[in-house]
Amino acid sequence: MNPEAKLAELGVDLFDVQPGTGPVQPWVRTGNLLYLSGRVPDSGLKGTVGKDLTTDEAYQAARECAIGHLSVAKSALGDLNKIVRVVKVLGMVNAVAGFEEQPQVINGYSDFIVDVFGDKGRHARSAVGMSSLPHNVPVEVEVILEVE
Amino acid sequence: MNPEAKLAELGVDLFDVQPGTGPVQPWVRTGNLLYLSGRVPDSGLKGTVGKDLTTDEAYQAARECAIGHLSVAKSALGDLNKIVRVVKVLGMVNAVAGFEEQPQVINGYSDFIVDVFGDKGRHARSAVGMSSLPHNVPVEVEVILEVE
Amino acid sequence: MNPEAKLAELGVDLFDVQPGTGPVQPWVRTGNLLYLSGRVPDSGLKGTVGKDLTTDEAYQAARECAIGHLSVAKSALGDLNKIVRVVKVLGMVNAVAGFEEQPQVINGYSDFIVDVFGDKGRHARSAVGMSSLPHNVPVEVEVILEVE
Repeated sequence: MNPEAKLAELGVDLFDVQPGTGPVQPWVRTGNLLYLSGRVPDSGLKGTVGKDLTTDEAYQAARECAIGHLSVAKSALGDLNKIVRVVKVLGMVNAVAGFEEQPQVINGYSDFIVDVFGDKGRHARSAVGMSSLPHNVPVEVEVILEVE
Repeated sequence: MNPEAKLAELGVDLFDVQPGTGPVQPWVRTGNLLYLSGRVPDSGLKGTVGKDLTTDEAYQAARECAIGHLSVAKSALGDLNKIVRVVKVLGMVNAVAGFEEQPQVINGYSDFIVDVFGDKGRHARSAVGMSSLPHNVPVEVEVILEVE
Repeated sequence: MNPEAKLAELGVDLFDVQPGTGPVQPWVRTGNLLYLSGRVPDSGLKGTVGKDLTTDEAYQAARECAIGHLSVAKSALGDLNKIVRVVKVLGMVNAVAGFEEQPQVINGYSDFIVDVFGDKGRHARSAVGMSSLPHNVPVEVEVILEVE
């Protein structure tokens, strides 16, 4: 499976992400691991899940985080075929106390990644609930990639 | 210290964990690191700590997460003696705002790991409070293992 | 940039951190990665951000976490020049629901790290809100370092 071809088939366009000059970078590589900073939805969607937003709306927001991360990875590596394995995802949902559907929300991220990468997209994960996230975004996701 | 012998001495039986076909896997290996997905108690215990459950009850739930993780590691490696070091634990407690005893809760995980592995079970850790966890479980724990 | 000289210039004294005999260690090394346990402010500052403490007060608390982590790293390595790269930071803010300024709080950590290390201090990061932290501290930070 060629992730670049798969994205074209899905009609998803990635965008360029530049490292910038601040303390926080979109990615850092150490050895064969590429650590990507927490990613939030690019649409500007805001709100707390279970109050302002439904699980389905947050699923779409998590999918946006995956597209953002693949944009970062493409900018870092030049070619998504250099990703050997998606290793570990931490999916954080801005949710009301007692919310129970964090996995269903973060599946918006995980399903997209496996659609694009197939078997090497399958990952270890936690999907958990936060009392608040920056700028009141509904979802923030971190990922660690093994790269060539 | 032989972790397999120690588990037998403690009367703890591990169980088989299969990788499955979904996007989320119980473990992913990269180099000599084995990343285990967030683990929740297998007893089905539910509730928020500081409201529905006490710190002592949550300590037992965290111990269950450790048994679950060792079951995953055994399934992944075939032999727990292949674990070189327990590297890093992230212990997440579903707790009321203002809860202060996350370390005491996650000690249920950490104490068990060191009982089984001795010095190589000693780990870096954070133990923190979440506003919600999947299916209202009281504890979820992630771990990174160094393996042969 | 020599981090030890820079700390002297800033008038910041580090302190010795011993590994101890408990299950939880201040650091664990695996390969060229040094995982540091979640660090809280050494001043004993307590409180929830957005209720008891302002963003500016929490910024100072996050700076304390950075000084604590450099003390741990110095104790582990003997010399901060052995740090090749600050790889990944997870900044956790004990905040009221709906709090939006986690990045501004954790900048207290990130700004200090880059002041001391320059380019190799720039890191991947998430900065997120927790419903509770141990002993009601306002901030807890984890870090992964690449070392010689």
